[in-house]
Amino acid sequence: MNHNLALSLGNLLTVLREKKPLVHHLTNYVTVNDCANVVLAIGASPIMADDIGEVETITAISSALVLNIGTLNQRTVASMLAAGKRANELNIPVVFDPVGAGTSDLRNKTTHELLKQVRMSVVRGNMSELRFIGGLTSSTRGVDASDHDIRDGSQNGIEMAQNVARQLNCVAAITGAIDYISDGTRTVSIANGHPMLSAVTGTGCMSTSLVGAFCGVTTDYFEAAVAGIMAMGIAGEIAYQAAGSKGTGSFRTALIDSVSRLERETFVEMGKVSEN
Amino acid sequence: MNHNLALSLGNLLTVLREKKPLVHHLTNYVTVNDCANVVLAIGASPIMADDIGEVETITAISSALVLNIGTLNQRTVASMLAAGKRANELNIPVVFDPVGAGTSDLRNKTTHELLKQVRMSVVRGNMSELRFIGGLTSSTRGVDASDHDIRDGSQNGIEMAQNVARQLNCVAAITGAIDYISDGTRTVSIANGHPMLSAVTGTGCMSTSLVGAFCGVTTDYFEAAVAGIMAMGIAGEIAYQAAGSKGTGSFRTALIDSVSRLERETFVEMGKVSEN
Amino acid sequence: MNHNLALSLGNLLTVLREKKPLVHHLTNYVTVNDCANVVLAIGASPIMADDIGEVETITAISSALVLNIGTLNQRTVASMLAAGKRANELNIPVVFDPVGAGTSDLRNKTTHELLKQVRMSVVRGNMSELRFIGGLTSSTRGVDASDHDIRDGSQNGIEMAQNVARQLNCVAAITGAIDYISDGTRTVSIANGHPMLSAVTGTGCMSTSLVGAFCGVTTDYFEAAVAGIMAMGIAGEIAYQAAGSKGTGSFRTALIDSVSRLERETFVEMGKVSEN
Repeated sequence: MNHNLALSLGNLLTVLREKKPLVHHLTNYVTVNDCANVVLAIGASPIMADDIGEVETITAISSALVLNIGTLNQRTVASMLAAGKRANELNIPVVFDPVGAGTSDLRNKTTHELLKQVRMSVVRGNMSELRFIGGLTSSTRGVDASDHDIRDGSQNGIEMAQNVARQLNCVAAITGAIDYISDGTRTVSIANGHPMLSAVTGTGCMSTSLVGAFCGVTTDYFEAAVAGIMAMGIAGEIAYQAAGSKGTGSFRTALIDSVSRLERETFVEMGKVSEN
Repeated sequence: MNHNLALSLGNLLTVLREKKPLVHHLTNYVTVNDCANVVLAIGASPIMADDIGEVETITAISSALVLNIGTLNQRTVASMLAAGKRANELNIPVVFDPVGAGTSDLRNKTTHELLKQVRMSVVRGNMSELRFIGGLTSSTRGVDASDHDIRDGSQNGIEMAQNVARQLNCVAAITGAIDYISDGTRTVSIANGHPMLSAVTGTGCMSTSLVGAFCGVTTDYFEAAVAGIMAMGIAGEIAYQAAGSKGTGSFRTALIDSVSRLERETFVEMGKVSEN
Repeated sequence: MNHNLALSLGNLLTVLREKKPLVHHLTNYVTVNDCANVVLAIGASPIMADDIGEVETITAISSALVLNIGTLNQRTVASMLAAGKRANELNIPVVFDPVGAGTSDLRNKTTHELLKQVRMSVVRGNMSELRFIGGLTSSTRGVDASDHDIRDGSQNGIEMAQNVARQLNCVAAITGAIDYISDGTRTVSIANGHPMLSAVTGTGCMSTSLVGAFCGVTTDYFEAAVAGIMAMGIAGEIAYQAAGSKGTGSFRTALIDSVSRLERETFVEMGKVSEN
């Protein structure tokens, strides 16, 4: 791992814990509790609010906004648009998780509308979701990446992340066995993580929330995305060692434990980031 | 336990883990995370989506549909009807959990409407809920079975399951200290489980979701119901051994652990299914 | 600790476990599962229902009503008003958690409307929220108490609790490092708890739910509030001893464990309540 990048990411964690940024979420009701707990575990402060009557006010007092369409509905999509536009006006970073993009017209239309009306700082999804956003044919099957996209992506992840980053002028992060993150100029691969992360719901959503937390303390959203996604990957490795053999319930508890105990040094020692 | 049935259920688990069926849920926001995690733990793939604009599309790509009215509202009831009808058109199995049926006019009316408009493959509930559906006087008190119904049911469970199964031409499953499952012809009792299961929210909902997962890989919905409900019962026994003395929080974590570690052989060795 | 009060609170726990009161919640989707599990852990029975078409019916069969505006929206606010009024008609106690009051106009207006139209038995919040309700300038920042309010409050908590209690003619409970509870005449401070409680989402909401559970078995809502809040504080201490060093995920699991294992004697031995 690049030593300068490692130090920079470790320092970002230290800053996050000092500043405890408030992270506004409009997210899904499946994993919302996990997102709140992971944001607290990393050292930030979560707030979930989705009524159109208050989202702009809540966004305005926050350091970052997370939009996650996992269980979108017509009421909350309107709130996401309002919150996103307000964040843009105030230069508050917006992190977008296009859960299931490519699966239904509603998700596709909403994804396009959000990307059209809101300037995203980071878009994080799996291979199928980012493929859809990149305008390629996606074989999304539900909310998990399709096997076809995963196989295919292991060769094209770098290119796809760069492509989406340039198209949207934002940071694009594709997570999977290997994660690919690009801002169009800089691109990295992260080899942290463990297969058991895909046996627990919400690990993708939690990664996005961690990215949101890091975006709350820096204007280098590329570094924020790398830090958030690497944090989840490293936590997955530690959690597997601690509790993987017990089953997926204990692994999930250990995952939050691990995030809460991450230190600057953990990033430096365990991070497996390669620059491409 | 009948050896042929035991083998058949064990084989079903093996098939489920190979096929990883997608299970679409329209469910309540109290236990939705538990349902997603238990579906992943058994080896299937959950998707939760409830906007009327996409439920038909999501159902169409799924192998089973779970409808759970735990926190029903007017928006989601309409979505449940739409999803259920689409599932019927495509011969996708529908599993119905009439949470709290008998408690309020809204739940009663919704239950009747869903049963009228959607052909259910399996209905799973507690004694009070199934008694209501069977057209008998229910003494439902909230979302848990009333003591009166439980006492009464221990004698009449078999008959009640058969009655509901014949009335609705589906599989009826009554869960409690002893579970009763019937398709009108075949009827079994399951003696697996542990009292601590009633000290954790969502164990009923999770049973329903497991039934949904098994329905995704067989057209014998009676066997699917037996497999799903027995899986939860056996997992409860293992979880109690592993963590019951620590308290209900650890028991809940161990429950998901146990589901994730169930094997074909666990079914054969621990299953307590009697044919009636 | 006052020995008579200690005994009285311990006895209340025994009564609660015998009576298993039904506690109706209209609450937020972030921590709703935790609230349901903590209510089960203490020995009561939770029911979550928020459709306007059934809230009055559900409230009418319940022993207490909990209103929590953590993720309020226009639909559920109307339901909260309907449920609260029905509870008042039937003399069913209402416990109000004004999550984030002071943060947005919507929360402020809703808080005022609920307090105007519904007679609350107990209002529980952090220093910033209760300061807002007391009509003072609040420096609420999101859903956690601001540091300024916490520092300030350590001197003024007693006075603020008394003030709010007298203004609203209810029990006012301010939770934090030290908890302050008053009914306008009697006032106590509770020194139980652990800082790690603020590193897990929902510990405030769970305290409110525990107060609701105790309100379901006594008409002395002051004692019910003291019992519920002390229960969470003691559970936090036990959980920290059991699992704090592992991280916040294990601490959270241990917290529910501890509530489920509280006994009459635990209250007497560990309670740190001082009368003011």
